[in-house]
Amino acid sequence: MKSSFGQSVNICIAGESHGEALVAVLSGLTPGIKIDMDYIRHCLSQRAPVGKISTPRHEADEFEILSGVFEGHTTGTPVTILIRNTNTKSKDYSEMASAARPGHADFTAEAKYHGFQDFRGGGHFSGRITAVLVAAGAIARLALKNKGIEIGTHIAKCAGISDRYFENVAEDIKALNNKCFAVLSDESAEKMQAEILKASEEGDSVGGVLETVVSGLPAGLGEPWFDSMESVLSHFLFSIPGIKGVEFGSGFAVADMKGSEVNGELRIENGKIVPVNDLSGGINGGITNGDILKFRCAVRPTPTIFKEQKTVDMKNLENKTLCAKGRHDPAIVHRVRAVVDAATAITLCDMMAQRFGTDWATK
Amino acid sequence: MKSSFGQSVNICIAGESHGEALVAVLSGLTPGIKIDMDYIRHCLSQRAPVGKISTPRHEADEFEILSGVFEGHTTGTPVTILIRNTNTKSKDYSEMASAARPGHADFTAEAKYHGFQDFRGGGHFSGRITAVLVAAGAIARLALKNKGIEIGTHIAKCAGISDRYFENVAEDIKALNNKCFAVLSDESAEKMQAEILKASEEGDSVGGVLETVVSGLPAGLGEPWFDSMESVLSHFLFSIPGIKGVEFGSGFAVADMKGSEVNGELRIENGKIVPVNDLSGGINGGITNGDILKFRCAVRPTPTIFKEQKTVDMKNLENKTLCAKGRHDPAIVHRVRAVVDAATAITLCDMMAQRFGTDWATK
Amino acid sequence: MKSSFGQSVNICIAGESHGEALVAVLSGLTPGIKIDMDYIRHCLSQRAPVGKISTPRHEADEFEILSGVFEGHTTGTPVTILIRNTNTKSKDYSEMASAARPGHADFTAEAKYHGFQDFRGGGHFSGRITAVLVAAGAIARLALKNKGIEIGTHIAKCAGISDRYFENVAEDIKALNNKCFAVLSDESAEKMQAEILKASEEGDSVGGVLETVVSGLPAGLGEPWFDSMESVLSHFLFSIPGIKGVEFGSGFAVADMKGSEVNGELRIENGKIVPVNDLSGGINGGITNGDILKFRCAVRPTPTIFKEQKTVDMKNLENKTLCAKGRHDPAIVHRVRAVVDAATAITLCDMMAQRFGTDWATK
Amino acid sequence: MKSSFGQSVNICIAGESHGEALVAVLSGLTPGIKIDMDYIRHCLSQRAPVGKISTPRHEADEFEILSGVFEGHTTGTPVTILIRNTNTKSKDYSEMASAARPGHADFTAEAKYHGFQDFRGGGHFSGRITAVLVAAGAIARLALKNKGIEIGTHIAKCAGISDRYFENVAEDIKALNNKCFAVLSDESAEKMQAEILKASEEGDSVGGVLETVVSGLPAGLGEPWFDSMESVLSHFLFSIPGIKGVEFGSGFAVADMKGSEVNGELRIENGKIVPVNDLSGGINGGITNGDILKFRCAVRPTPTIFKEQKTVDMKNLENKTLCAKGRHDPAIVHRVRAVVDAATAITLCDMMAQRFGTDWATK
Repeated sequence: MKSSFGQSVNICIAGESHGEALVAVLSGLTPGIKIDMDYIRHCLSQRAPVGKISTPRHEADEFEILSGVFEGHTTGTPVTILIRNTNTKSKDYSEMASAARPGHADFTAEAKYHGFQDFRGGGHFSGRITAVLVAAGAIARLALKNKGIEIGTHIAKCAGISDRYFENVAEDIKALNNKCFAVLSDESAEKMQAEILKASEEGDSVGGVLETVVSGLPAGLGEPWFDSMESVLSHFLFSIPGIKGVEFGSGFAVADMKGSEVNGELRIENGKIVPVNDLSGGINGGITNGDILKFRCAVRPTPTIFKEQKTVDMKNLENKTLCAKGRHDPAIVHRVRAVVDAATAITLCDMMAQRFGTDWATK
Repeated sequence: MKSSFGQSVNICIAGESHGEALVAVLSGLTPGIKIDMDYIRHCLSQRAPVGKISTPRHEADEFEILSGVFEGHTTGTPVTILIRNTNTKSKDYSEMASAARPGHADFTAEAKYHGFQDFRGGGHFSGRITAVLVAAGAIARLALKNKGIEIGTHIAKCAGISDRYFENVAEDIKALNNKCFAVLSDESAEKMQAEILKASEEGDSVGGVLETVVSGLPAGLGEPWFDSMESVLSHFLFSIPGIKGVEFGSGFAVADMKGSEVNGELRIENGKIVPVNDLSGGINGGITNGDILKFRCAVRPTPTIFKEQKTVDMKNLENKTLCAKGRHDPAIVHRVRAVVDAATAITLCDMMAQRFGTDWATK
Repeated sequence: MKSSFGQSVNICIAGESHGEALVAVLSGLTPGIKIDMDYIRHCLSQRAPVGKISTPRHEADEFEILSGVFEGHTTGTPVTILIRNTNTKSKDYSEMASAARPGHADFTAEAKYHGFQDFRGGGHFSGRITAVLVAAGAIARLALKNKGIEIGTHIAKCAGISDRYFENVAEDIKALNNKCFAVLSDESAEKMQAEILKASEEGDSVGGVLETVVSGLPAGLGEPWFDSMESVLSHFLFSIPGIKGVEFGSGFAVADMKGSEVNGELRIENGKIVPVNDLSGGINGGITNGDILKFRCAVRPTPTIFKEQKTVDMKNLENKTLCAKGRHDPAIVHRVRAVVDAATAITLCDMMAQRFGTDWATK
Repeated sequence: MKSSFGQSVNICIAGESHGEALVAVLSGLTPGIKIDMDYIRHCLSQRAPVGKISTPRHEADEFEILSGVFEGHTTGTPVTILIRNTNTKSKDYSEMASAARPGHADFTAEAKYHGFQDFRGGGHFSGRITAVLVAAGAIARLALKNKGIEIGTHIAKCAGISDRYFENVAEDIKALNNKCFAVLSDESAEKMQAEILKASEEGDSVGGVLETVVSGLPAGLGEPWFDSMESVLSHFLFSIPGIKGVEFGSGFAVADMKGSEVNGELRIENGKIVPVNDLSGGINGGITNGDILKFRCAVRPTPTIFKEQKTVDMKNLENKTLCAKGRHDPAIVHRVRAVVDAATAITLCDMMAQRFGTDWATK
């Protein structure tokens, strides 16, 4: 029942979609990391709605850093990020107070909180809260950059359209981090957006798959068993609303392959051991092997749709039908990209701190 | 760097493949759970090698309960399970001491432990350690049975062969728990075993997909964000050696579907709200909705194969080739089944204890 | 390196003495606890400076609840409390930037944060941060009151003057909770205040001992070993700046007594087992016995004094002398009282939630 | 409800006084620490009964290391220590099954475990379990010795008799670690033992105070607030049966002093900042200052006494009287010494690992 995650580096979040504000506290960061406010804004912009394929609810996402930064650097004590909600239209939700939206947490919140939950816009369950996660993740990414560690995520698939594979990882990461709609192939990007628009016009929504790579990680991060790199990353990733699958390396595809295809090799290069063609995503036995870390997340279609759905009135315990109103995304996969980057960054900072101690990012 | 997992109910494990013994400590269980030794042995038998499709290393898996059980019931204090290793043939591994086996943790262990790791048979990274997990999980399952909660896992796919889908969940769970090779369709089971044997004869190995269902869970378990049911379950599942993907409900398939297809409905039945045709695996917003819990795990092919592989000598930093000797499984998916059941049971006990308090299993 | 504490109920804090704001996130509380804003203000007033015996820095301590409360009740999701710093005079501290104040954390902060710490007014180490703890604690106390659990703390000793012992615990708790200077005997209170004033005039400071009692706790809270009631309470209490000793029951005095004097008895009263004259503070084997919980905390004299002290310049690594300027308390024991109450309340909510589940406070 | 403690270095314990065995799992230790079996035995001998002043129950305390040590060094994976109970006389306790011994955990165990607890000899609450803690602590001390960190504890007071103060800390630590009855002054030691014997002859028991010093610790260990050095150490110390008070530096005495007396100074010595005459026990703001770490623990008199005591029969809910039988210590303070050393060592390893990373003990 904690609202925090992480051991040596820890993140705590709070807030509701239509409440006063969203808050994240990021603790355990190395002191002396230079804060680049523009970079944080840049990361937040990658979570912002994109033109017609996103919700018309636009939030300025003006963040304030309330603690943990002094004279432009992290102090080493907890960093607090505050984002006030400004553009809330709670009236739109009033008639939904007792109608459970299918696919949403409305009914499970009722089962857990007995009617005391803030139902407006999904309350604490809303993807809105990820705004502060992204801001905190941006600071974590600045720490990782100090050690040459870079993260990039693309939409590998959306509404049935696939992006191309990673080719030059360094260049691809760079390109992705300059895109709002993170697709490597421009042609695929256009097709995906067209499909999202089409679904939107039908009052429906689409899902997708995000693929993330991390370069520059040392071998030796993670633990056997319960703190395996896969365990800790998936724990955070599955906390992001809408993620229903996580796979490392070739993931579920590996299940259909032979051992001889999956194993890859090890080789001596420049006096160091390097893995080659290993399909495990850069992790063996829960521990990084120095190769590119690679994983994929399945993102479900937005549950809010503008089609009539059968559901219940939770107060009167009656069946009823519901058709969404308000402002909603016909797809969230492109916006979840920034959240996956943030989750990855915070988790990797934690793993680095556990392995190399508090001062890992500056020493 | 903890070797334990869980909050209100916690599991701690230790041991190595060719060390003295394996140990699990399971703490936080409700006092008064009746211990059924035969049931624990039954669960262990489902992890044991199966005929020709498994390693010829047979361990009696004689376990001892060293603490936490008194006069046939759990006391509420930590339960310790000990299994001594008896059938260890370390000589087979001696020449592998410095040769890193591709796909294994040999190289990552070297990167982390600098040569001090017990390299014999994978040491602490070995699937062998799961024997005590399965025994601990059996006790957790006895606690869940007290509340009518049942777990069943089948091999949904192996070496390209698919099992049938779940039909009558209660009956299918019952059937699976009486099978050593957990496939619902006998025809599929035969085909899978034939494929495993074929791979074995080629000196190769195959992977698969396990699908798990849980019946009888109340709505309201799990938390929004970091302690979501998906987060906590995946954390444990990804700690099991060989698991490279976890998905809930329709998982990655949902990524290609429309919101209107995925959402399902809610309905009043006998005065209670029930979800119908929801494809989220029984979890919305991280919290159980009272429906059948459903998830799938991708299990990679055993990395140890009898084909020549390119690798390195870690001591002399030289390239070399390696061909496995010793005793190995051409597939582990059928044995991992028992471990997934155990991981699920322990995690669900923890979630029940957090929600309903210490005495949840008997009150 | 987490800035949070607690398992089922958890508190996370952030902020600096002269930073933008202080933040606390309290998570895991039972949904449906009625929020009494006046009571929170009342608890904060007990932490506020008292007349001449406290610092002239007066903060309005206007708090905002940013999340977790909806329509006047807790939602069950994280409650965020924000207090902005308004009355900061950082100039007073500028010349102290490199001078380590003896008895303070200035030097240890330097050793840990390498010059990046916010040195103004003690930064993150300042007792100022306890303001949000007290507000969070007030909400925890409201939850406990739902179950008839009441907390009271008095200044058992200050500057050599002792208060009287507890007599009628229920009445004494009530009386204490209406006092700003929490002393049971008015005569002792006057003497203590006179001593504090005298020390203040000498530019010095005094310490004291706080004694806390809790009524209404059920038997059976806490665990053997690492989560003993003493362990968890002392963990929180020792995080409060200035506390250098914690003892339960007769504490250090018990060390000089015989077993026959300490043990007390057990007796049947109204068909229930009750402890009588037990000097263990209501805890045996780490678990509450249903008696009044009782412990004492030693509070050191404020380290900031207006006498010349020998210290060092941390930048130039030179010896120097220092005489405090700015606004400081000649004693903090009377203000720490409110923080001890808050720490106790949050810890007990956690212990209740672990024992009885999420809904403990309302069911 | 976890039976484990620690973040980067973690200890898990299990077992009962009259059960099969005691088990400790120590995880997160640096790989490559040389194991000195004689040193572990030596530490265990300091917890063993001493002549006439201890229980006649003598246990060989033959321990087995079941995992985590390979070729004489720690592997970096979990170390398991097993001690079988051999000299159990459960019959002596049979008539006590339903009689709650005053001062013991019998009644609180009943309140928590509803009759399922192993009541024999205190079960899981017994000081007997500390045997494995001491063995695990010995290994932790070997790690600390690698970095020049040494721990020493003396009986500062017992049955009203005081030991002399520490003089030359290095020499005093050395002397203490060669003593079974850890008193610096031989004259005081004799007087204490005489008092213990006298209490024993009266069928009564006595308590005492242990004082611990640690040399060689770097400045900068611990965190502000919840993971302060005092918080983490006291958490572990209060889990040791019989400890009812913990104080750092001058502790409760500081409460009667002036700020000018307590503060001490800082000084430049050999180009480094060093604290002088600081009475805070080597900790400011929760973080070590590089000075000798110093704290004291109050140890209550053994609750088992051979005098008639009033108590209850828990099954029949009747008042009754009880007079102890069996084998018991008239004092435990001299045996608890080894447990305090162990708890301190394990906690400090954790703090070092958090600060400097996994390899802190060998790099």
